[in-house]
Amino acid sequence: MSGGAVDPRLSINQATIKHADLATALRVTAAAGVQAIGLWREPVNAVGLDVAARMLAGSGLRFTTHCRGGFFTLPDGPERRAALDDNRRAIEETATLAAAGADGSTAILVLVAGGLPEGSRDLAGARERVRDAIGELAPDAAAAGVTLAIEPLHPMYVSDRAVVSTLGQALDIAADFDAAVVGAAVDTFHIFWDPEVLTQIERAGREGRIATYQVCDWKTPLPADVLLSRHYPGDGVIDFATLTRAVESAGYTGDIEVEIFNADIWADDPARVVRRTAETFGAAVSPHLAAVLDSA
Amino acid sequence: MSGGAVDPRLSINQATIKHADLATALRVTAAAGVQAIGLWREPVNAVGLDVAARMLAGSGLRFTTHCRGGFFTLPDGPERRAALDDNRRAIEETATLAAAGADGSTAILVLVAGGLPEGSRDLAGARERVRDAIGELAPDAAAAGVTLAIEPLHPMYVSDRAVVSTLGQALDIAADFDAAVVGAAVDTFHIFWDPEVLTQIERAGREGRIATYQVCDWKTPLPADVLLSRHYPGDGVIDFATLTRAVESAGYTGDIEVEIFNADIWADDPARVVRRTAETFGAAVSPHLAAVLDSA
Repeated sequence: MSGGAVDPRLSINQATIKHADLATALRVTAAAGVQAIGLWREPVNAVGLDVAARMLAGSGLRFTTHCRGGFFTLPDGPERRAALDDNRRAIEETATLAAAGADGSTAILVLVAGGLPEGSRDLAGARERVRDAIGELAPDAAAAGVTLAIEPLHPMYVSDRAVVSTLGQALDIAADFDAAVVGAAVDTFHIFWDPEVLTQIERAGREGRIATYQVCDWKTPLPADVLLSRHYPGDGVIDFATLTRAVESAGYTGDIEVEIFNADIWADDPARVVRRTAETFGAAVSPHLAAVLDSA
Repeated sequence: MSGGAVDPRLSINQATIKHADLATALRVTAAAGVQAIGLWREPVNAVGLDVAARMLAGSGLRFTTHCRGGFFTLPDGPERRAALDDNRRAIEETATLAAAGADGSTAILVLVAGGLPEGSRDLAGARERVRDAIGELAPDAAAAGVTLAIEPLHPMYVSDRAVVSTLGQALDIAADFDAAVVGAAVDTFHIFWDPEVLTQIERAGREGRIATYQVCDWKTPLPADVLLSRHYPGDGVIDFATLTRAVESAGYTGDIEVEIFNADIWADDPARVVRRTAETFGAAVSPHLAAVLDSA
């Protein structure tokens, strides 16, 4: 990376420009010189999967992940079955979009586990149901050529969003399955605090489970809505040098997404946000990348 | 425990009635039939240590913990030395208050590690400095007969309050020291989310490191100030049955503090708060206690 060039491994996760529709997201990402994008189901389904796939193909961008499946911590019943069926649709979408993206696209569906069911205090039970749900979905993912990426979320989201809280826990769940079918999402924001983070990144690499590497920053005070507490790389306290080198050393050579939930960034012009994302990624993350994109 | 009686192992942590001065805190705690109290340094020092010790003795209450020492993640320099000197004073206060409390009082100083120094991204370095600081303080604690209780705080506080984030990490630090001198604080709010929590509670018991067991509840959405997101036992999603039985099975037979930071509870009448604390403890925690107070 030298001055001004956009890192070829940078991918814009569409959530960073949440209020842009799919056409806008693809346009501003490509216009900034970014080569890859991760999409979200809602804007894809707003235009329909086939149209979305054609738009993606037309953009020339690589497709890196589909966000998101999961939310399957409910006990057996119609709601759980509906959630599993919805995940099966998400698997199909992922395969279709990966096929439509430019060479080097990856068919990865990010899974956010879901929180405790209403009225429940049984974290252990909810965690077992996550494992069971992945067991039900793994054959569908394998058939579609899709990798399910279990995303551990920061423990402040454990009760209402994701009962998978550490990379080690995600890897323990993934261990029951083929590494081509079930991996983990390594997101700096969610795991930087973990005293075991470097050990678990090394393990994730050794076990072939790093499905995607995502970056954004943490700083305090947290905003009133803690979901929106994510920042441009370099604007907070996360040590991207150490974490990025660990992910590289673990053998990850894929695209790297920036996924930011932040009300101020969402209110900004999407083209400017993508340019700023490329700049901050170039300053905070690119210097610590050793590998070249293996799929380029 | 039968209807209406206050659990003999309940201790009111003074932070639960933060705006009560020491005299009020002692009075409303004893008046509610609670037998024990954990104190905070600021209200103790507001009246002076000797006066505080006489007031505590006069209350007839057991003294359970002193809150709090720590905040020693700074690199070498005058500020770090001042923090260590302040911790030495806190050790002396702890010993004095434990001697003044009723039979069965315990000399435990709770340690909150502190966050990242301003401008730093070096969590690993800050964590090493915590270990070093405890190494400097351990001889003073041993000489005073005080146990230092390392408190892991929820990972949402990692950057600005406590770089010790899990019970396992606290035990790893404590392992370098005599178990009578350095233990851990087991607080449900901070560790309930941890997939390893039961394993680490069992380990803490086996290693003789459960210095204190503290309870309060977690629920979402978190308030704008996430420091104040603690609730009466039973008002949230924490499984007190499983965690309390684990702590009991690990051999803990001491007093159990309720420590709640919550703006609404702080705004309430302290006598009512203590009564409500005793009621909720009796409903959510007492049924899961097997052991009798060994020091009674």
